[in-house]
Amino acid sequence: MNEMTPSFEQWRSLRLARIERALDVALPPANTRLHQVMRYAVLGNGKRIRPLLCVAAGEWAGAPDHALDAAAAALEMMHAYSLAHDDLPSMDNDRVRHGKPALHLRYDEAAAILAGDALQTQAFMTLIEGELAPLQCAALVRELATASGSAGMAGGQAMDIESAGAHPTHAALEKMARMKTGALLRAAVRMGALCAASPTENADIPPFPEALERYASAIGLAFQMVDDILDAVSDSETLGKTAGKDARDRKPNYVSILGLAASRAQVEQLRNAALAALASLPSSDQKPAHRLAQLADFIAKRAY
Amino acid sequence: MNEMTPSFEQWRSLRLARIERALDVALPPANTRLHQVMRYAVLGNGKRIRPLLCVAAGEWAGAPDHALDAAAAALEMMHAYSLAHDDLPSMDNDRVRHGKPALHLRYDEAAAILAGDALQTQAFMTLIEGELAPLQCAALVRELATASGSAGMAGGQAMDIESAGAHPTHAALEKMARMKTGALLRAAVRMGALCAASPTENADIPPFPEALERYASAIGLAFQMVDDILDAVSDSETLGKTAGKDARDRKPNYVSILGLAASRAQVEQLRNAALAALASLPSSDQKPAHRLAQLADFIAKRAY
Repeated sequence: MNEMTPSFEQWRSLRLARIERALDVALPPANTRLHQVMRYAVLGNGKRIRPLLCVAAGEWAGAPDHALDAAAAALEMMHAYSLAHDDLPSMDNDRVRHGKPALHLRYDEAAAILAGDALQTQAFMTLIEGELAPLQCAALVRELATASGSAGMAGGQAMDIESAGAHPTHAALEKMARMKTGALLRAAVRMGALCAASPTENADIPPFPEALERYASAIGLAFQMVDDILDAVSDSETLGKTAGKDARDRKPNYVSILGLAASRAQVEQLRNAALAALASLPSSDQKPAHRLAQLADFIAKRAY
Repeated sequence: MNEMTPSFEQWRSLRLARIERALDVALPPANTRLHQVMRYAVLGNGKRIRPLLCVAAGEWAGAPDHALDAAAAALEMMHAYSLAHDDLPSMDNDRVRHGKPALHLRYDEAAAILAGDALQTQAFMTLIEGELAPLQCAALVRELATASGSAGMAGGQAMDIESAGAHPTHAALEKMARMKTGALLRAAVRMGALCAASPTENADIPPFPEALERYASAIGLAFQMVDDILDAVSDSETLGKTAGKDARDRKPNYVSILGLAASRAQVEQLRNAALAALASLPSSDQKPAHRLAQLADFIAKRAY
């Protein structure tokens, strides 16, 4: 890195602006109520962790911006759909999201369900419309679907809801966290790297580096642990969503199962594991992995 | 057709059995509660109109069975997800589906929402796992997403819910019907034909025959009109779902806007238009369009 390299905050700010533009373009215009609800669900808020991970992995792998725009927008739409549905009264019954009224309160329940449904579809559509080579496009759809479906995010959310009042083992808790949250974060890293596959050649997608897999796995789990810690120690205003929710709903989480100190220690272990994995990646001045390292710090140390 | 050609009922029975097997294989095994709910939502019932249209179009175009299995299963999963969500209390509030308790009554609301979500994802996954050429796969994902999202099925359902108590024009009603129901039926025909695109060559997908487009458009609209007619004149036991629902919910439909006789006359007109479109298709003994013609009759004359 020379002195002209932007700081992490400069990089994040530039990338957030680009992600916001990509989302604005990839979402339908606000010409129907449903489209307005979809845009409310996605635009103008959120940490954009999944898009940032995708872009950072893509920059390391040498992916073109237009491909990263499509993958990053698709990931965020998939995440936004899951929040719209998770917040529903029959699910986690949350009233506030990103410091604003949850979708079903700002609009209504039917609107929240349908906007979530349509956002999931729009996520796949965004990948298809991303001017990617068909092979690459199919690989990205596969990553996103695998991470989001019943073996990933939706399956993890189902386990989470069924867990109320239960006392899972550490292993069961980890499985739930890896599905509910880890899978889509891991997919973000993988999709960023996939965006670098050459769109002109018809050869198979190159194998995903094992070290990047270890990084993605570690930060995916760390993210959920930090979520559990913040739910226990932070306040609703800082989080922009209801704090203390897991205790209220008798939901087991890392803090209730491992305790606060052990959870914090595990986050630090996972952060170190993520950084160690990155250090073993092949790199060059053109393809620095330092944004991925900075994002690991950001995820481990975030306060909201 | 020679005397060995199976009757429509024989063909339909054989194809329904094959579709059921394809769905059974494409759905995750019943090893979690969520997977059980997904399987309850899809297996063992339903007219399978979308898969049958897909298969009939595919047989006309010369598509291989394995590709049609994937497309047909994906279409039915997408349809089943929409029913799971439409039946929810905050949407159409329906208690019975295919003669069985609706998903949120047999299980619970959260399960119905999550199973619907996961079925949508599984639909896209099924296309990806269908051993199709990447170009073809991407084209099928595009068709399915376009038909299902906010410009298609989900958008039409949003319009339908917003329409309670309203008196739309005939044109507005047609737009809603084409989005809510017509789009996915049209996609079924298009996806069947797309399955015939050669998986080995990397050339562009051949253009969709304009006559097949007219057929798909006509039967898509006719299907919704028949739905509206049956809602008005049939009983819940025959339908396997609540009859008289639109009147109960003050929802405008073809019967309330056009009247019963005019709605029936329009169905007959659309059936004739569909058959006329098929008659102008290129055909051969190997690729008969007669299954599509028989399905147009089936759709127009169905009693449930």
